[in-house]
Amino acid sequence: MKITRVTVTPIAFKDGPLLNASGIHEPYALRSIIEIETDNGYIGLGESYGDAPALKILDLVKERLVGLDPFNLNGLRAIVRGVVAAMAPASNAGAELAPGSHASKAVSNAYSAFEVACLDAQARYLNVPLVDLLGGAVRKEIPFSAYLFFKYAQHIDSPYAPDAWGEALSEEQIVAQARKMIEENGFQSIKLKAGALAPEHEVACIKALRKAFPDAPLRIDPNGNWSLQTAIRMAELLGDDLQYYEDPTPGLEGMAELHRRTGLPLATNMVVTDFDELRRSVALDSVQIVLADHHYWGGLRDTQQLAKMCDVFGLGVSMHSNSHLGISLMAMSHVAAAVENLSYACDTHYPWQEPDEEVIQGGKLPIRNGCVQITDAPGLGVEVDQDQLRKLHQLYLECGIRQRDDVGQMRKYQPDWKTVKPRF
Amino acid sequence: MKITRVTVTPIAFKDGPLLNASGIHEPYALRSIIEIETDNGYIGLGESYGDAPALKILDLVKERLVGLDPFNLNGLRAIVRGVVAAMAPASNAGAELAPGSHASKAVSNAYSAFEVACLDAQARYLNVPLVDLLGGAVRKEIPFSAYLFFKYAQHIDSPYAPDAWGEALSEEQIVAQARKMIEENGFQSIKLKAGALAPEHEVACIKALRKAFPDAPLRIDPNGNWSLQTAIRMAELLGDDLQYYEDPTPGLEGMAELHRRTGLPLATNMVVTDFDELRRSVALDSVQIVLADHHYWGGLRDTQQLAKMCDVFGLGVSMHSNSHLGISLMAMSHVAAAVENLSYACDTHYPWQEPDEEVIQGGKLPIRNGCVQITDAPGLGVEVDQDQLRKLHQLYLECGIRQRDDVGQMRKYQPDWKTVKPRF
Ligand SMILES: [Mg+2]
Ligand SMILES: [Mg+2]
Repeated sequence: MKITRVTVTPIAFKDGPLLNASGIHEPYALRSIIEIETDNGYIGLGESYGDAPALKILDLVKERLVGLDPFNLNGLRAIVRGVVAAMAPASNAGAELAPGSHASKAVSNAYSAFEVACLDAQARYLNVPLVDLLGGAVRKEIPFSAYLFFKYAQHIDSPYAPDAWGEALSEEQIVAQARKMIEENGFQSIKLKAGALAPEHEVACIKALRKAFPDAPLRIDPNGNWSLQTAIRMAELLGDDLQYYEDPTPGLEGMAELHRRTGLPLATNMVVTDFDELRRSVALDSVQIVLADHHYWGGLRDTQQLAKMCDVFGLGVSMHSNSHLGISLMAMSHVAAAVENLSYACDTHYPWQEPDEEVIQGGKLPIRNGCVQITDAPGLGVEVDQDQLRKLHQLYLECGIRQRDDVGQMRKYQPDWKTVKPRF
Repeated sequence: MKITRVTVTPIAFKDGPLLNASGIHEPYALRSIIEIETDNGYIGLGESYGDAPALKILDLVKERLVGLDPFNLNGLRAIVRGVVAAMAPASNAGAELAPGSHASKAVSNAYSAFEVACLDAQARYLNVPLVDLLGGAVRKEIPFSAYLFFKYAQHIDSPYAPDAWGEALSEEQIVAQARKMIEENGFQSIKLKAGALAPEHEVACIKALRKAFPDAPLRIDPNGNWSLQTAIRMAELLGDDLQYYEDPTPGLEGMAELHRRTGLPLATNMVVTDFDELRRSVALDSVQIVLADHHYWGGLRDTQQLAKMCDVFGLGVSMHSNSHLGISLMAMSHVAAAVENLSYACDTHYPWQEPDEEVIQGGKLPIRNGCVQITDAPGLGVEVDQDQLRKLHQLYLECGIRQRDDVGQMRKYQPDWKTVKPRF
């Protein structure tokens, strides 16, 4: 089997005015859709980052993949390494919220984008679900969590009609957002993206969620925007309300100190984002749970290796997400299905995406009882809707955004907005 | 694809009177040959331990594999775990030289035996070499080392005619053994199994090898039979003659202390034999090179995970061997072909096996320029010679050995032989 053609299509889709530690989401999120075709008529799919530096590498790599056997993943890695070595990609702002956009992640990001597509092609050729190439499913229902955000009712300058979610700034509004999201998806766990408003208010929102959903595991994620002192103070207020405390404070040393001082289980997608940081975290006991993300950990097989290392070093494994569509959701679900020690509901932004902006045939995938289902369909189990792909590519061409910039977007609301870390 | 039949055939083949830390090899070594058949006509091969406790588990597992999809490796692991949990296998003597025979390794051993056979069936079904399922070959010539042993000319009581190697006790005899083995196989690296004779004499043999083969990387492996003091004293004598110093002294703490005191790179197949010991070794900086062995590390994919962890934690990777035939040699070679950071020539006992005692069609595999070649043949690239399998199974039935016992065998030569560790 040989690759005969590779397309990388940048797309954009609506993204809500969601607040976070850096600023606020822009009106459109960017992604790339990868399609590889083989000489025996199979197509493998992938979805990855859509910002300009990532696309540049994906475009350079894709040229060199024609003729490669999709089973030759070590060959793919060598090609990606060669391309990245010949460039010197610069880092970009806002990268701390989308760890995959770090320049240092260039190889693992681009490799991952094509690795998923190659594994999908392999699995379709074999007529088996992709998870079978990862050792087979230990679960077929993959639990995800309700991912809550503080948000405005609509974007500044109204680029399009307001979304169905409305404003969420108060405790009542956050509880209402949770109710709607749980009603529609059946989630059992709840995560609150924090680091945006006053810490005491964010903690009060957790308290309100605890009251409204007494049995739901709760998580708060200030994206490293709290000082060690603030994180300790909030830990005292939170008591044992949390399943885990996600990136409250920056740095491996800060997290290690926080864990020593509070004993709380700390999770991260910010201080452990590659294997070398994992090694350092193990030495410092910085975090107790690693949020895996195949998009920047180097694909589905490396995510399995990460999970194995977490098992060996006594760490828990959960899953991080950025704004994404159904191909990524299924890639996340297939690897989650194969990882025995993935013992927490995964994060996903998927409920935030509009129903008419999915690139896969049949529209958005259902999330039932909080779970995505793995079926016996070959590969990832989804097909591209070419009309939708063209539509979202057109949106990419028109939207004018080429790189995520939550800080710049916030300056449209508050011209004196500064990048300060930690802010609180 | 479903498994329709599984056979596990215990075999025996001649093994030379090779000396080691525990005692001496018995006249026959035991192995098991695994064949799984699928409903679509493929056969997957494996080779594993042949001692009675291992066979008992393999036999119990095989009963439960009918109906399993060979791609469902997580399902295989669950079956093996279930079988082992229902037993309480006892540990056995001599296990320190054959780490796979530890009772604690029961799950990973049995899993590995069938994992290789399942991967072989997968690859044959796909019509690709097995290495393609491990990410593809980063090398197609797998380097092995000349594995020298102190030995007698023949076994006590002459169970069969003496082998072609003759006695090897003196420096001259060891150099002659190396010459013969290198002449026949082209090996570039040399390993001396030590811990058997006086340490000063064993070091003198290394010096003689250094003189005879000035450019060959050299290793010595006393199997933990030297005290810390002896190991330090021998290190001083050895100077910088060694590529690495393999298991000179017992225990993670002993090895850590030895490394602190000498700075020499220490390799092991004794103190790091599973992922938990790897974790402890990382904390103590006990060893710098791990000798992988898929037979007890949990198969080819787990060996890849081990290699990745070694990469992350800055450890080198090489490969351990026990007495084995061609199916194991090819399994070792396929995983070695896929592991980028396997940066040393692997160990193998293969040259010690008699040419008429191979179970694969065509007889013993060639080792040229010290390398085993990975071809494009499907799966492991070898087929069972059923006549040879029957012959070696008959030898198993007749030889009377059911569990490796180097200590008991040595007592036939020296009735007062004791298990002392470290002996020197
Ligand atoms: Mg996070
Ligand atoms: Mg050894």
